[in-house]
Amino acid sequence: MPDDFERMWADLAPIGRSASSGGYHRSPFTAPERELDAWFVEQADARGLRVERDEIGNVVAWWDVGSGPGVLTGSHLDSVLDGGAYDGPLGVVSALAAVDALRERGFAPARPIGVATFVEEEGSRFGIACLGSRLATGAMTWEAARQLRDRDGVPFGDVVAGASSSLLADVGTFVELHVEQGRDLVDRGAAVGVGSEIWPHGRYRLDFAGEANHAGTTRMEDRVDPMLSYAMSALAANKQARLAGQRATFGRVEVTPNGTNAVPSRVTAWLDARCATEDALAELVGAIERQAIDRAGRDGTTLSLTAESVSGPVVFDPRLAASVAADHAGGDWPIIPTAAGHDAGILSAAGIPTAMLFVRNPTGVSHSPAEHAEMADCLAGVSALAETLERLSR
Amino acid sequence: MPDDFERMWADLAPIGRSASSGGYHRSPFTAPERELDAWFVEQADARGLRVERDEIGNVVAWWDVGSGPGVLTGSHLDSVLDGGAYDGPLGVVSALAAVDALRERGFAPARPIGVATFVEEEGSRFGIACLGSRLATGAMTWEAARQLRDRDGVPFGDVVAGASSSLLADVGTFVELHVEQGRDLVDRGAAVGVGSEIWPHGRYRLDFAGEANHAGTTRMEDRVDPMLSYAMSALAANKQARLAGQRATFGRVEVTPNGTNAVPSRVTAWLDARCATEDALAELVGAIERQAIDRAGRDGTTLSLTAESVSGPVVFDPRLAASVAADHAGGDWPIIPTAAGHDAGILSAAGIPTAMLFVRNPTGVSHSPAEHAEMADCLAGVSALAETLERLSR
Repeated sequence: MPDDFERMWADLAPIGRSASSGGYHRSPFTAPERELDAWFVEQADARGLRVERDEIGNVVAWWDVGSGPGVLTGSHLDSVLDGGAYDGPLGVVSALAAVDALRERGFAPARPIGVATFVEEEGSRFGIACLGSRLATGAMTWEAARQLRDRDGVPFGDVVAGASSSLLADVGTFVELHVEQGRDLVDRGAAVGVGSEIWPHGRYRLDFAGEANHAGTTRMEDRVDPMLSYAMSALAANKQARLAGQRATFGRVEVTPNGTNAVPSRVTAWLDARCATEDALAELVGAIERQAIDRAGRDGTTLSLTAESVSGPVVFDPRLAASVAADHAGGDWPIIPTAAGHDAGILSAAGIPTAMLFVRNPTGVSHSPAEHAEMADCLAGVSALAETLERLSR
Repeated sequence: MPDDFERMWADLAPIGRSASSGGYHRSPFTAPERELDAWFVEQADARGLRVERDEIGNVVAWWDVGSGPGVLTGSHLDSVLDGGAYDGPLGVVSALAAVDALRERGFAPARPIGVATFVEEEGSRFGIACLGSRLATGAMTWEAARQLRDRDGVPFGDVVAGASSSLLADVGTFVELHVEQGRDLVDRGAAVGVGSEIWPHGRYRLDFAGEANHAGTTRMEDRVDPMLSYAMSALAANKQARLAGQRATFGRVEVTPNGTNAVPSRVTAWLDARCATEDALAELVGAIERQAIDRAGRDGTTLSLTAESVSGPVVFDPRLAASVAADHAGGDWPIIPTAAGHDAGILSAAGIPTAMLFVRNPTGVSHSPAEHAEMADCLAGVSALAETLERLSR
């Protein structure tokens, strides 16, 4: 008998976990993430699933039953830097457990069912979120991807064998289960919900350039200090997003030369921005850029803003969402939006009918060691996913 | 015949120089800095000087002539990260060239003359400026120093053999030549000046702690974002120092986890602050801390401020300064203060009569690849140092 959900979950718990913070460091193609990948293949083998792998590192384990386009589920195994246990792995482990549940109850699918793991969903290493699914769907070209570099300057093209893949050729529907990254389900008193849409969002690199100088001897009025331009921009971004119920975050900053006794020559900061519509996103980023340029002008510094990735809105197939959510013993599952990007958004945008299931997160905290979901809710998620796969593969 | 100033200067130019920025990376006990150390010993050997080295890495090359307490000159060979060519090495190369000048004119000193290089003057690696001279004078204990760690966590005690030294036991007077890090001499139209005092200054680590969370899904009002507390503090520090003609700089920042799509859990930033008096310095740092705590309170974050090193005011022996500055053919050399710390300040505070010579810096820029001094001014500095050594060692 394959490992059950709780056993699988316990097996993953120590992999890539920081002893000091309790957070996870599962960057793509590092030892902990490769250990998860090997673990997934072992689990697939133990269930007699047929493992397909593309050159980029995405994997699908197929239950070869029935015929016609398959129903794909799964998620990702990588984490943000010092992230939580649930974001990604919950969808993969739940998918394996859901397949077990369908088999235990003797269900015979009319279509193949696959369990996928997509690489570099978080963009924690090469800077582009959903890199694996973007390449698998053709949303990004290999020519563009191969030149992406990690923080040590290693190109993506040196890490993977590369080129595009036909891994998703036989996929008719995709359903991704994910821990909720907010408290919508808490407010609604529901263990499980269905996704309606993903907000448009983007990552923008802001390079503020100034002039290095001595921190002791250079008069304040003689400085060309990019730290000041950055600091004002970070506060402006927060205020701008707060006023309109949007999101703007500076979570990553790199200072050159980053010495205590030197005025910096350069501050590079990354803006993560998300809004309900594309127009609002463009307006938000434009407003932040204007305020940054204004301050840079006063500081004598210069600003260059580069959009590293921008994702348009994703509205999941509303009929599919409704059919997943309706007609349950305990009442309909709530249908909720999210501001988080997911591989499901990439597959949906590529024309694959796609649904998302969310599992309640008691605090809403995510991308943090404190990310959590109760075991009872996780098991409710497994049941909901099994039920959904059953409906979609009849 | 030993290499002359221009030849020595040209020999040092490529060592530790970044091809991209043109700046120098000569951190203590890294390959480029050790190459400079080996070069210095070679130069001392070529001049028949007796090389003494302590366990910390400080070196003195003695011209064993005359008797009684010696006259020490020299400076340091390490640089800030991406620093300039002159800060430090100018004093060492000028010292060797000044010894040559004294010998060429057949001067017979009544006291020994030594040329020193002190390690880790900039504090670029272990965080404490003038670490070598602090240990050599007993201003810092080995027990405290051995536990200092660099950015990779390597303890100072693993890098050097350690313990204190008696390297300075025979020193009666110290004179350090240094490139000016301001434009006082430009304003006065003088190639060379004499130091009067060093402003009190300190380095303070500010740890802002918040809560990591998802950058997309966490509402702005639900965040506990230490980046905002830091950003406001950086702006407040600048404004505070600017109003009072003081210095406050945030040149080094480290963000945890430093991921684009995560609200940070922690921002650590280093404040470099300098004022004309100790009271003013305490007031400046206190005012910045109050504003930081106030903002942290509004953000829900916490601030902990640690003074990593604080140096009191140094007033160089006024009679010594006057005697160095007076009675020159071209008129007296100007006597000027500085806001930069130097090994000379540490030796002076330890009770060794100390003087500083400054060489004109046309832009005032320092701790930067753009740091510069004209060759004619450097050679004027060598002459001035030779003349000073001659006066002090009669």
